[in-house]
Amino acid sequence: MTARFITFEGIDGSGKSTQARRLGDALPNAILTREPGGSTGAEEIRRLLVEGEPDRWSAETELLLFTAARRDHLEKTIRPALERGITVISDRFADSTRVYQGATRGDLRSKVDALHSLMIEREPDLTILIDMDPKTALQRGLARSSGEDRFEDMGLEFQQALRTGFLDLAKQDPARWRVIDGNRSIEDVWRSVQAAVL
Amino acid sequence: MTARFITFEGIDGSGKSTQARRLGDALPNAILTREPGGSTGAEEIRRLLVEGEPDRWSAETELLLFTAARRDHLEKTIRPALERGITVISDRFADSTRVYQGATRGDLRSKVDALHSLMIEREPDLTILIDMDPKTALQRGLARSSGEDRFEDMGLEFQQALRTGFLDLAKQDPARWRVIDGNRSIEDVWRSVQAAVL
Repeated sequence: MTARFITFEGIDGSGKSTQARRLGDALPNAILTREPGGSTGAEEIRRLLVEGEPDRWSAETELLLFTAARRDHLEKTIRPALERGITVISDRFADSTRVYQGATRGDLRSKVDALHSLMIEREPDLTILIDMDPKTALQRGLARSSGEDRFEDMGLEFQQALRTGFLDLAKQDPARWRVIDGNRSIEDVWRSVQAAVL
Repeated sequence: MTARFITFEGIDGSGKSTQARRLGDALPNAILTREPGGSTGAEEIRRLLVEGEPDRWSAETELLLFTAARRDHLEKTIRPALERGITVISDRFADSTRVYQGATRGDLRSKVDALHSLMIEREPDLTILIDMDPKTALQRGLARSSGEDRFEDMGLEFQQALRTGFLDLAKQDPARWRVIDGNRSIEDVWRSVQAAVL
């Protein structure tokens, strides 16, 4: 099997991180990474993004910081691994930005796309959306207080807008996306993930 | 006099910060700010940019971080002051990015311009270039070791490329730029700055 770039997307508490980790363990030649973060520099930018008050940054500044972190992640972690034949599994990537910054502030969506074309370009080979009911997901997310709750603090309505945003993206590019029902046991979701990847 | 947005540009050690401070003291209704930095968030991004090894970030990631800091600076410091009728004097602004990231990596210049159009837009009303011999400037810059020497560490050849870059920008937009000879006493340079501003 050739090296692939596989991403997991979904709202907070959807269980995508658990599934990404599981896939990382199951594949023989793969690394697991995450966004924001995934490289030394990007993890430092991550701290600026996930800590502090929800209105700490404007949507535009936030978008620039996410793109800076992504560029570092791509250069230092993702590309070098793929070039060495290692599959990269990332917990979130550019689609999270499209949905978080784009779907919730509609006027920003064209800036999100322009920045991606200009500074990132790369798309995953496969994106797995763990889709689930925002109420359940929010309860799960709040249950594990990590000190990185800036986005989760934004509430249920926000999570519902995110879910719609992810489903819309998946619909626009069905060749890249697989939508998996996350309202089931971890084992059942895992079986669907395996089927999507293998 | 209506509020103006005035920026100082020049290579490290050119004396532009001294002159910017002096102008801030001399004008009755003005604030002095600087880049990278100039707002709480931008100062945090500044730390990522000015500390550490010269090759810590790629030119592309660096460009995104500078633009993020600039956006925050513009939103939180520059625009609010101008709207209240206060003149803003900034020690460096977008022209530094054009020269540092653009002139030294020619292939990046179109990305620099595209990012500026997309996320910043605003240009100063007046830009003062304190132009001087890079050898003298480099000696001055290295004399005050601030722990923020990442760019100064890049050496004389780099400073010479920067000088050429600034002079080229000034030539392209003479209505906005005033070029002042910095190879003179602080008092003489200050008289030229006053003449340019008043």
